[in-house]
Parts: sequence; structure tokens; C-alpha cells
Amino acid sequence: MKPTDIAKEGTEMTEETEHMIEKNGAKETETVVSAGDAKEMRAVILSGFGGLNKLRVTKKAMPEPQEGEVKIRVKACGLNFLDLMVRQGNIDSPPKTPLVPGFECSGIVEAMGENTKGFEIGDRVMAFVNYNAWAEVVCTPLDYVYNMPDDMTFPEAAAFSMNFVAAYMMLFEVANLREGMSVLVHSAGGGVGQAVAQLCSTIPSVTVFGTASSFKHEAIKDSVTHLFDRNIDYVQEVKKISPEGVDIVLDCLSGENTGKGLGLLRPLGTYILYGSSNMVTGETKSFFSLAKSWWQVEKVNPIKLYEENKVIAGFSLLNLLFKQGRCGKVKTVVEKLFSLYNQKKIKPVVDSLWALEEVKEAMQRIHDRGNIGKLILDVEKSPTPLARAQECTLTAHKQDN
Amino acid sequence: MKPTDIAKEGTEMTEETEHMIEKNGAKETETVVSAGDAKEMRAVILSGFGGLNKLRVTKKAMPEPQEGEVKIRVKACGLNFLDLMVRQGNIDSPPKTPLVPGFECSGIVEAMGENTKGFEIGDRVMAFVNYNAWAEVVCTPLDYVYNMPDDMTFPEAAAFSMNFVAAYMMLFEVANLREGMSVLVHSAGGGVGQAVAQLCSTIPSVTVFGTASSFKHEAIKDSVTHLFDRNIDYVQEVKKISPEGVDIVLDCLSGENTGKGLGLLRPLGTYILYGSSNMVTGETKSFFSLAKSWWQVEKVNPIKLYEENKVIAGFSLLNLLFKQGRCGKVKTVVEKLFSLYNQKKIKPVVDSLWALEEVKEAMQRIHDRGNIGKLILDVEKSPTPLARAQECTLTAHKQDN
Repeated sequence: MKPTDIAKEGTEMTEETEHMIEKNGAKETETVVSAGDAKEMRAVILSGFGGLNKLRVTKKAMPEPQEGEVKIRVKACGLNFLDLMVRQGNIDSPPKTPLVPGFECSGIVEAMGENTKGFEIGDRVMAFVNYNAWAEVVCTPLDYVYNMPDDMTFPEAAAFSMNFVAAYMMLFEVANLREGMSVLVHSAGGGVGQAVAQLCSTIPSVTVFGTASSFKHEAIKDSVTHLFDRNIDYVQEVKKISPEGVDIVLDCLSGENTGKGLGLLRPLGTYILYGSSNMVTGETKSFFSLAKSWWQVEKVNPIKLYEENKVIAGFSLLNLLFKQGRCGKVKTVVEKLFSLYNQKKIKPVVDSLWALEEVKEAMQRIHDRGNIGKLILDVEKSPTPLARAQECTLTAHKQDN
Repeated sequence: MKPTDIAKEGTEMTEETEHMIEKNGAKETETVVSAGDAKEMRAVILSGFGGLNKLRVTKKAMPEPQEGEVKIRVKACGLNFLDLMVRQGNIDSPPKTPLVPGFECSGIVEAMGENTKGFEIGDRVMAFVNYNAWAEVVCTPLDYVYNMPDDMTFPEAAAFSMNFVAAYMMLFEVANLREGMSVLVHSAGGGVGQAVAQLCSTIPSVTVFGTASSFKHEAIKDSVTHLFDRNIDYVQEVKKISPEGVDIVLDCLSGENTGKGLGLLRPLGTYILYGSSNMVTGETKSFFSLAKSWWQVEKVNPIKLYEENKVIAGFSLLNLLFKQGRCGKVKTVVEKLFSLYNQKKIKPVVDSLWALEEVKEAMQRIHDRGNIGKLILDVEKSPTPLARAQECTLTAHKQDN
């Protein structure tokens, strides 16, 4: 059987081989499958769009690398706010379910398809994947795979790829961050927020305004210049400190924040929409109403931009990588970022490690904005009472819904 | 009398001292006023918004510098497409008429107001003025005045300021022009177009697509990589050569070109609206209908920018300077540009020199898009039969209305 057939079959077999590992959220530890099985692997599966109950860990056929692909034994996967939107089906052209979520991972090269140069078996790598990252093994085209710096741990690498690449490209490719500028970033305690704060600190005299839930302020106050509670009117607070506004607004919230962000820009300033986390709300809201509000962002009149000397941009790293074929550009950015990492100028902030079986708790934590830095799925980790205890503590912080 | 009073009076006296120099467009040469008069000076005056017949040369009270201002004996003034829009009153918040048009000039420092450091009488300077440039003498705040490079002529300086500063800021401050990128610029034969082409040539491997009237192609073909006739479908032509589009679109046309320009952008590309010359049409159209179409540019959905990884910006140098107080930023840009000039990497293209009394012919020429490079009002020039012969030749090129 050719690798192509196996991979295809792997997809088709999903429903059949799906194994209900977790039914009531209490018995996960009983169901850990051996990672040594060569024909099968564990993966998180999303059975349909919806709430947390659509997620489970299952066995899937082992994928094999096709031409130009690298097969990676996954050690750690990144969990992003975007994964919540995928789970809810609240994204542009959602793929079919069932699917394995996850867009980034780190691990060890286990095999290579034909015509795959630049990697050797055993290499420690960081990779982007167009879904399927939350599994013990993934295959992805070599354009999306990067050799990790020696000092970088697997969880760091999984925390690094999407957040630092997105933060870097927004600050330095889309906007033009330079000495003396000011930046406003929402969710300053999140993965992108912390990456933005660190990258801003590599440029002299950059002022960073951040919004974050109040309980995070103590932990992240040294990473930004000014911190505001996420529930207050940040426009007024920024203007009190900087009446003329800011040079760069990074907005992952969308909705009314687009108009607010544009209004806060100084002349020649850049507003960048890179997400819409405000569109992910409680589990009870209908997805239809969510999708509607996502599209109700106010349109922008180019003439107004002309009169005010302003710039508005959108940034989607996944579209850039998987729909728009700009992996060459991303590769040069990854190289610059690894150089900054090796110079110890940046370091990914890992919030917590979770077993694959704990993906729901991890998602709940990111949904509740309980995290500081990145949530990582640690593929070799077993669910622990400690993780569960953490999760219970966090429900005390559910301030957002 | 304090300088303030004199300057005020100068404005108020306009109607009274206004001298009808030209009534039927045939007797301008008879009416040149001596430049040596210390109490009065010659200036082009716009008596009301409308056609060319609203322009005439008149005597005005000599302005005196107020605190922080530099008084300049003008040698040359730049004529921009924007001046046509001002004449038609087709701009945002138009000022009251009568007024002296003109936003840029070069000349010699003749006096300084109090608290004016950095200049000496006799300095050769280039300056921005918030109206009033088309006169023998202007006063403007020292933030808008720059000492010219020794090798630069006065016409070159008047051709330099707005066009090169706008081109530089759009390419390097708003967009992020770098090696290997591609740029589309309309009116490639105009002042900004030629500045864009020259600045692009300072960066390795930049591809410039330009549109221009066909009769200019022979003259400007070496300045850009690909030239298209301005009346053809440039979207199709660009896509034939570069199916993936371009990195930067500089649009001075607006209207439907905004959507076309956005559609031509590669991912991470930037569209910049910096004018709306399509809104200036024949003298017969009503200004109301013009103003309406100016505002009918299609609005842009930020979500679309997000999905497509695109950037849309507006750029208005005059607003930046005179409404938004960014003259410090502009000063650093002027210094960089003077350095490029001194290295002989850029050189303003002067299309033709015109006496103040020939301002109508000059405006007709820019309206008919007859120019290659910049039209300059040469304050010391007398109207010549040569200029008139040129103007007649040009009517043969009226292809646009």
C-alpha cells in the first residue's frame, strides 16, 4: 500500500476506528493508548462543530508522509483562541468534521516522504500543520517545518510558532514598528500579547499599552508599559496618557473595537485586525448569531483614511501559510525570531501543560481567559490530579461570561 | 504696526487691492508688476471656486513674518493636481475665497520673525506653505522650511518637496518597500509618478508597473519596468505579467480604482489612496456631482482584509503637515531625500516653467495630463510666446475629456 492510500484511508477510517475514550470527563486516565503502536496513534478529534462535548481523544490510523512531507513524532502542540472558533465552526469556510484540530506542534522527525531535503530523522523541529496537529504523529510539507534552536524545549517551540510569527509579522511587516512608537495590544496576557510585548522590548523606547483581566496584572505588569482592565473603556485610558493616540493597534477582538482602534490611531498609524475572540462567547449562544456579529464589523471609508492618514490591515497567519502560499516569507521571519531567541531577547511564555485527554479543560481555561501565555498540549503527559486541581482553581476567575 | 496686523490686513485688503490683470486670456504680458516694490507683491489669486477664469495675478500687501515664521522671496512654486481640486473647491473643508493657491515653493530667506532659529537671511530654502505659495513673497513657520542642497536649483526644489516627500513616505513609511517587491503607480509620467519610479530604483529588484497616456511612453519608458496606457484595463495587463498581483498599489485616481487596486494586491500587500484626480474632470460638470462621486468610493470590510491579508491606507501630505502636526516626521524624510539627491540617486523631473501670469495654461496642461514631471511657476519669468506655443501643441493631446 502506498503512503497516499494509507493517508486517505486514515481519514476515511476515522469514524470506524473512533474510540470513545472519555464520556463523562472523569475517567480519562484509564484510556491512555500506548504511543508505541506502529499502526495507530492517539489524536484529539472534533466530531462536529459545537461545544466542548464535541472533543474526544481517539485512535486513528498512523499517517505516512507523502512526497515533500515530513513525518513528525509530536511532543507538544499549541492551543490557540482560534481553535475555539474552529470548534464552534465560527470561521471562514470551515472544513468538514470529523477532524483533528491544531495548527502547530513541535517534535522529532520520524520519516520523510520523497523529495524531502533539509531534514534528517531525529531532528528536533517546530512545524505548522493545516489541522491535525493535536495527535501523536503528523505529516506536513517541509515548507512548514523548521529546525528548532538547541536550547528551545518542545513546549517552548509549540508556544512559539504561531504567536511569535504573527506578532513579528504584524509589528514589522504589516506595521513598521520603530524607535519611540507606541502599541496597543488586547489580551496582553495571552500568547500573542506576550509575544508582542517581548518583541516591542527589542526596539528602544516603545510604549506598550495592554488590556488584560485584572487578576493577571500582577503577573504581567513588567511586560508592558501601561496595563488596563479589559472591561474598562481603554480608549479613554489611553487618551489620558497619550492624547494624540498610538502608532499601532493590534486587535484580536473585532466588533466595535475596530472603530475604537481606528479612532485611537495617530496619523500614519496602523490598525491591524488579527482575530475576533469577542465572537467566541458562552456555549449557549447560537452559532448563527455569532457568525452574524462577526460579519457586522463596520466598513471603512478609504476617503476617511486619506483625510486622517491612517492604515487599516488584516492579518491571518493561517491564510498566509495555507491559502496564500507565503511560506517563504514566513521562513525568513522564523529565522529572525530564532536569532532573537538565541540572543535571549525573546522567550515564549508557557502557561500550562495539558495531556491530550485534558483538551476540554485547556479550552475552558483559554475561553475563560485564565491563561498567562500559551497553553500547550503535552502529548506524552498523562492527565494528572494536579491539572484537574488547577482547572478547578481557575473557574474562580471566570469573569468574562 | 506689528507684523501680525500687517499680515491680517494683507488678507483683508485682498479684495480692495485686487487688480484685474487678465480679463480675456490674451493680454497677460502687459500686466507684469514690478517685483521690487517693498509694500506690495504679485500673487496668483483665486477669486472663487470654479473654472480657470477664477484665477488672475494681482497685487497684494507684502506679508511680514510673525513669530516663528520665515519670510521667503519666492523663486519657484510647484503646481500639483491638488491645486486644480482646490480651484474647483473639490476638497475637504475648502477655505474661503479669495485666496492665493499653492503649497510649496523655493526661494531665498529675506527676513525672520521673532524666535526663529536655524536660518539666515540669504539662505536658499525649500518650503511648504498652507496656501499662499504662488506669490513673490511668502511667510511660513520655520518647521516647514528646509535649507536646500547646494547643487539643487530653485525649480528642482519646488518640484521636489511635495512629490518626493509623498512618494517616499508612501513607499517607506506607510508601505514597507523592500528588495524584490512590485509597485503599481498611476500617472507614472506625473510628478509623484516620476518620484515613485526614482525611489523604487534605489532598492534592488523592484518591479514598477506604471500607467500613463500613450504619448508619454517613449519619454518615460526607462523609468518604469512595465508601462500601460491609462485607458486600458490595467488589472488584466498586470495579471498577465504577474498573476499573483503586486505588493504596493499607489492610487491617485480613487473611485472604482480602489476596488481594482485592492484586488491586485498580493497577500501582505498595501493599497494607498493619495489623491482623486479622476474627480477633476471637464469644466462643464457641476461641482456638486464631482463631490458626490468623490465620496462614493466603496467602503472596505476589515474582515475581508483579515481573510486576504491586505492593507489599505490613505495618505495626504497636506493634512499630515498642516492639520496633524507631523512636521518633525516630514523633516527627517526631507533629510533622507536630500541625502539621496546629493548621492545623485534621485533628481526631480521638471516638465516646464511658467510665469505666474501663465498659471491657467499651466493648469490646463496638468488637467490634460500633458506633463512629464512637474510644472513649475517661475516667479521671475515673463510670459513668453514659446510657452504659448507649447500650450497650443498640447491641446492636441487632450485625450481625456
